[in-house]
Amino acid sequence: MGCPAGIGPEIICRLFDREQGALTRNCIVVGDIHVLEQAAACLGLNLPIVSWIPGQALVTGTLPVRQVQTVRSEPVRWGQPDANTGRIMGQAVEMAVAMVTSGAGRAIVTCPISKKSLQQAGYPYPGHTEMLARLTSTQRVRMMMAGPRLKVVLVTIHVPLAQVSALLTQEEVEDCIAMTLAALQQDFALSAPRIAVAGLNPHSSEDGLFGDEEQRIIEPAVRAFSSDQVSGPWPPDTIFYKAAAGGFDAVVAMYHDQGLIPFKMLHFEDGVNVTLGLPLVRTSVDHGTAYDIAGCNRADPSSLMAALAAARTISANRQQEDRT
Amino acid sequence: MGCPAGIGPEIICRLFDREQGALTRNCIVVGDIHVLEQAAACLGLNLPIVSWIPGQALVTGTLPVRQVQTVRSEPVRWGQPDANTGRIMGQAVEMAVAMVTSGAGRAIVTCPISKKSLQQAGYPYPGHTEMLARLTSTQRVRMMMAGPRLKVVLVTIHVPLAQVSALLTQEEVEDCIAMTLAALQQDFALSAPRIAVAGLNPHSSEDGLFGDEEQRIIEPAVRAFSSDQVSGPWPPDTIFYKAAAGGFDAVVAMYHDQGLIPFKMLHFEDGVNVTLGLPLVRTSVDHGTAYDIAGCNRADPSSLMAALAAARTISANRQQEDRT
Repeated sequence: MGCPAGIGPEIICRLFDREQGALTRNCIVVGDIHVLEQAAACLGLNLPIVSWIPGQALVTGTLPVRQVQTVRSEPVRWGQPDANTGRIMGQAVEMAVAMVTSGAGRAIVTCPISKKSLQQAGYPYPGHTEMLARLTSTQRVRMMMAGPRLKVVLVTIHVPLAQVSALLTQEEVEDCIAMTLAALQQDFALSAPRIAVAGLNPHSSEDGLFGDEEQRIIEPAVRAFSSDQVSGPWPPDTIFYKAAAGGFDAVVAMYHDQGLIPFKMLHFEDGVNVTLGLPLVRTSVDHGTAYDIAGCNRADPSSLMAALAAARTISANRQQEDRT
Repeated sequence: MGCPAGIGPEIICRLFDREQGALTRNCIVVGDIHVLEQAAACLGLNLPIVSWIPGQALVTGTLPVRQVQTVRSEPVRWGQPDANTGRIMGQAVEMAVAMVTSGAGRAIVTCPISKKSLQQAGYPYPGHTEMLARLTSTQRVRMMMAGPRLKVVLVTIHVPLAQVSALLTQEEVEDCIAMTLAALQQDFALSAPRIAVAGLNPHSSEDGLFGDEEQRIIEPAVRAFSSDQVSGPWPPDTIFYKAAAGGFDAVVAMYHDQGLIPFKMLHFEDGVNVTLGLPLVRTSVDHGTAYDIAGCNRADPSSLMAALAAARTISANRQQEDRT
């Protein structure tokens, strides 16, 4: 459900109301039933929201909710997260992971959270992805942003820009390339993927004029792979355009905004966040909590719809892969 | 003319051949006549390339060249710059500035250079823009990238990414905002411009979780201006999309790739580089030397055409401004 005070509850209700059992078939919302009822009322939807517990049958045309331990006793104030909304968010993630690891579910789709209220509630994670890694005892995860025209995978994510250079290592870049290759093959069923690796500095440092990370770290990492599949470091300001034009299947980006800025230029509405490296399938909407429009009946469920569709596709491709 | 070994000579010849006196009316190419003849031959163009000296009349249908001191005695090898090509480049910039400051010209349009061979030739500049600033004794210049849908202005430019944070100051950001405002009003004739200022860190640091430059530097700089005209810091991964969708007339970006990546996603072919702060009008193509395709008859003159058109527009707006 994501943050109760954000647009998560709203886009969930909107999607279940629209899709009536097609895309949302066999989907269970993990969160707080009162917040979801409040969101549905706010949108003027006549959507049956029903409590669900494992083992129960799902009824088409309803929105089934697996209730977390914390219940919202008073109405949520849209756009105003607090420690209570943080607890609901955190518990929802924990419960969703438990459901998938126990076999009650096949994939997790997440709505946006507030990292700040997550931390206020006592969860020491910089974000959703890091929390999922810890809960599944996964050492290395990567964030892929996937859309019809562009896929990007990030080497560093939620860190200050000033620390990016110090955090880059050849091992990290190699690991990110390897996980991207594996994901393109297994999750997206591409038999001969082509990956572009971005440089770090302007013009990829132009032969060392503006930094040496390309020569010291990125080039050696690229050389560890077949040149048919992996190339770079490419100048950051043009490689995303070239990839989107069909030149590459994915771009490995060195930091959050290097990858996210071009991705959102193309896929602001239909982008999906896919977490690579987890033992379970996890996709997420690629937008934030949008507190400024929460409860205003203006939120667009397109990204949630795309995330749900991607989770279904990846699950199917992984099952296919397991069979072959 | 830009770097003799790049695509500059080629796109110039292509443009003069196509435009036959409309867009290129009263335009003089500053560079080396032999290189331009070589480029025209390479493209199979029957274009009269004529030497021109100040005071001479211009003949429609010709490509007039103001010859720099260094002459290329042997054919240039496309894609292979050296100290000699660096000297031709550097002298062309010096001569163009002299022509405009003496009143023999009104604006400079530049083709791409190789920063490395510029330095090999003894010019100690990280780029074109810095060189133009020095030649015109200008203290502060800024690079604006302008296209029909998006304009961005950069606070820091050709520096290693690792140094960006240390180079950001409130004064620099304020100065950049002020120059952007002035340019939108004077050069682009917008009476009520709206400027978005980007943050530095992922999600604009999300209230300090990933860095403090937003609170320490960018917010105070934004507050120095009217909130009708200037707002921010905005999360970098979405503000360029919002500006391009019509929300803002320009975005002030903190570093090269923050601004250039989204700009090139939209304006890879028709983007223009405008230098703010100079006492003369200067626009430039927004692509590089493209050594990989130089001499192959594949280079596209669209950006040069857009740069020339922008130089004409800005000159006209500044003259209008001077009159009122």
